[in-house]
Amino acid sequence: MRKILIIGAGKSSSFLIKYLTDKSIDQKLHITIGDVNIKNAQLLAKNKPNTNVIHLDIFDANSRRSAIKESDIVVSMLPASLHIEVAKDCLEFSKNMVTASYVSEQMQALHEDVKAKGLVFLNEIGVDPGIDHMSAMQVIDRIRDKGGELILFESFTGGLVAPESDNNLWNYKFTWNPRNVVVAGQGGAAKFLQEGTYKYIPYHRLFRRTEFLDIEGYGRFEAYANRDSLKYQHAYGLDNAKTLYRGTMRRVGYSRAWNVFVQLGMTDDSYTIDDSENMSYRDFVNAFLPYSPTDSVELKFRHALKIDQDDIIWDKFEELDLFNANKMVKLKKATPAQILTKILMDSWTLSQDDKDMIVMYHKFGYTLNGKNHQIDASMVVIGENQTYTAMAKTVGLPVAIATLNILNGKIDSKGVQIPITKEVYNPILKELETFNITFKEKDVPYLGYNPLNL
Amino acid sequence: MRKILIIGAGKSSSFLIKYLTDKSIDQKLHITIGDVNIKNAQLLAKNKPNTNVIHLDIFDANSRRSAIKESDIVVSMLPASLHIEVAKDCLEFSKNMVTASYVSEQMQALHEDVKAKGLVFLNEIGVDPGIDHMSAMQVIDRIRDKGGELILFESFTGGLVAPESDNNLWNYKFTWNPRNVVVAGQGGAAKFLQEGTYKYIPYHRLFRRTEFLDIEGYGRFEAYANRDSLKYQHAYGLDNAKTLYRGTMRRVGYSRAWNVFVQLGMTDDSYTIDDSENMSYRDFVNAFLPYSPTDSVELKFRHALKIDQDDIIWDKFEELDLFNANKMVKLKKATPAQILTKILMDSWTLSQDDKDMIVMYHKFGYTLNGKNHQIDASMVVIGENQTYTAMAKTVGLPVAIATLNILNGKIDSKGVQIPITKEVYNPILKELETFNITFKEKDVPYLGYNPLNL
Repeated sequence: MRKILIIGAGKSSSFLIKYLTDKSIDQKLHITIGDVNIKNAQLLAKNKPNTNVIHLDIFDANSRRSAIKESDIVVSMLPASLHIEVAKDCLEFSKNMVTASYVSEQMQALHEDVKAKGLVFLNEIGVDPGIDHMSAMQVIDRIRDKGGELILFESFTGGLVAPESDNNLWNYKFTWNPRNVVVAGQGGAAKFLQEGTYKYIPYHRLFRRTEFLDIEGYGRFEAYANRDSLKYQHAYGLDNAKTLYRGTMRRVGYSRAWNVFVQLGMTDDSYTIDDSENMSYRDFVNAFLPYSPTDSVELKFRHALKIDQDDIIWDKFEELDLFNANKMVKLKKATPAQILTKILMDSWTLSQDDKDMIVMYHKFGYTLNGKNHQIDASMVVIGENQTYTAMAKTVGLPVAIATLNILNGKIDSKGVQIPITKEVYNPILKELETFNITFKEKDVPYLGYNPLNL
Repeated sequence: MRKILIIGAGKSSSFLIKYLTDKSIDQKLHITIGDVNIKNAQLLAKNKPNTNVIHLDIFDANSRRSAIKESDIVVSMLPASLHIEVAKDCLEFSKNMVTASYVSEQMQALHEDVKAKGLVFLNEIGVDPGIDHMSAMQVIDRIRDKGGELILFESFTGGLVAPESDNNLWNYKFTWNPRNVVVAGQGGAAKFLQEGTYKYIPYHRLFRRTEFLDIEGYGRFEAYANRDSLKYQHAYGLDNAKTLYRGTMRRVGYSRAWNVFVQLGMTDDSYTIDDSENMSYRDFVNAFLPYSPTDSVELKFRHALKIDQDDIIWDKFEELDLFNANKMVKLKKATPAQILTKILMDSWTLSQDDKDMIVMYHKFGYTLNGKNHQIDASMVVIGENQTYTAMAKTVGLPVAIATLNILNGKIDSKGVQIPITKEVYNPILKELETFNITFKEKDVPYLGYNPLNL
């Protein structure tokens, strides 16, 4: 029996646990799921063979270390900032490790030691980061293998509500951490490369500089730029690309409306509002508008943002009940972002029957034999229900498959890694196809940022 | 002979040195001016009685400490962050101290020790902070002494170009540190109080929420909110005031145009632009606009900001030569704010004959015997030339007068102080009047933020 320790059984772990427990007999796996709150773990492990659930507080070094010591490989599904303690133990006890999180500086610092011990700590093997790396690198390597040179790479991902559950004016519901959605894009200007020119967008303009994307059968989406589109330029071998852009997808119209919150300052997470506890939603909005003894909050809001009364954007704010004088914030010393999160959760929380959706869209521009070409590739995954979500599927399955592949000796890379090499991504992408996680590719004319060829 | 040590003889020290040296014989003063660069000090001290100039590097503890030890009082005109070392020495050697800077946390921490030694470290005794404190508290105390209660206090200051030298479309030139002008308002939302309601303005809206102010003989000004209008609420005894607002004055139209830089992200000082060294001014502007193979930077700029071609705002940007493809930035690893500062210095640097101007405007709303009243008070000071500027006059004279008053035992307050008590501000304001630094007061109807009395 090979012993897998999964630490953290939160929202993203349903498919991960299902995949591994379904294979536990065939593959001779014993799976231990440790969490500080074992309720969800027990639910997910119910009636699964070779599986047990343990209470595991990662801040309790003794129980953490003994659980890790007894395992053959460790999957950390903890919040990103907590991986490092697990990683240090894995290094000490010579255990391989898998996470779906971005490689932190602390994690990267372990690279040489991990390598020296012949271990692999595979990170960024969820959906974004994860499937985006693998699906992009598969096409990029294929283009290179036939002699092409990449000149453009754009990549977009969105966690959205599925079309069948899409019943609000924003075409959006929270399918992951609401706070991260509210503060998305903050912390510095977005930076990307267009036709060889570096471009910068300040946060307060981010949601007004969107691109449109069409996915057959799913209609039109829009995307706003991620903070650093150049992050993987070197890792992907795209040092000579003229255009690099990574973005976040929303349904069309979301960004224009969201921009209103940004403009008013309602997404700010850097200071607390005085007496937030006793504010109504209306008071909260009014705090960002000039005082008037007579003018309504509604009119001041429309005037400040230049919103016509028959503009569809207006209905979006009314739908959120933003101007309600009776609904109270009830949060002590809250930041604007925290209050806005609460207001949005009233409207954007998934109902029990709602399904979520993950969309991904890549564009690859390349030159081959003196001609420019472009491949567009898109993926859509719809969730099954509130436990087996598209998010849990696209995060958990790559983690699970990678874990098994490492156990089975199919991954030779050592050290702190991300899934950008063929030996890692090819088997995983192939296995993901059996779960209908697939990309539709099409050859399109290369237009770059010069669509009229002027 | 009483020995005064002035550390730092930069732009703001001309009137300070002139005032003290003019009185050096009558008042039996010996003035030592220390600076790491003695050129300006020598110029200002030329032919002055009882005055000598010494080379003083404040990072050289020995020379700093011996100079302080030999003096009776120390005036620090250093950059704000450097006062603390001087302050520690003054404490050790039991010397009084005067600065025109905001009280830092480190400085405040010395309060009890300074007090225990019977010393006074008088800070914030320039123009803003300084004359604003004194002139405001004089009116506030007068209102209180006759039984009135303050309900509104607004205070505005601007360092501008004098009308006779005001010859560009922005009606603005740099009369102090250009960098501080470019990054003004950054670092968090502006916060103030209007009719009992806390209001917050994010940086990217700051320059669109201005107030107008008229000063007889000088026309109309506008003001944008300072970051924290509530800073002196308690110190001024305004805990019950319904409206508190502190702002920065500009000529009308400046803020609307400046907002364009803010919107594009050109005032950002938090990251560096790639290859800034080899950029033209035009390239710099283009970095904040979408790529286009055909559209001009000018049209993209106008479109992004929705500027009509016959809008006066457009001429302001052309006047700055912002779209020049031949003028090079020539700054290595520069932030947007650093590049913008350079571009603006081309146009906004004072010529040798230019004069500067300091304007200040206070509004005091109060209730007395059941009725609401308002007093408006304004001050205008015009500089004489590029050495004897209005800035140097309004910063240096209060510092000089305070220094002499401390020496002459006219200030009883001990500890780390700011000039908000009668014993401090009354004699200083009276002396400033002899230099034509005066406020014009007028009683106006109290309107508050309900001008139509609805």
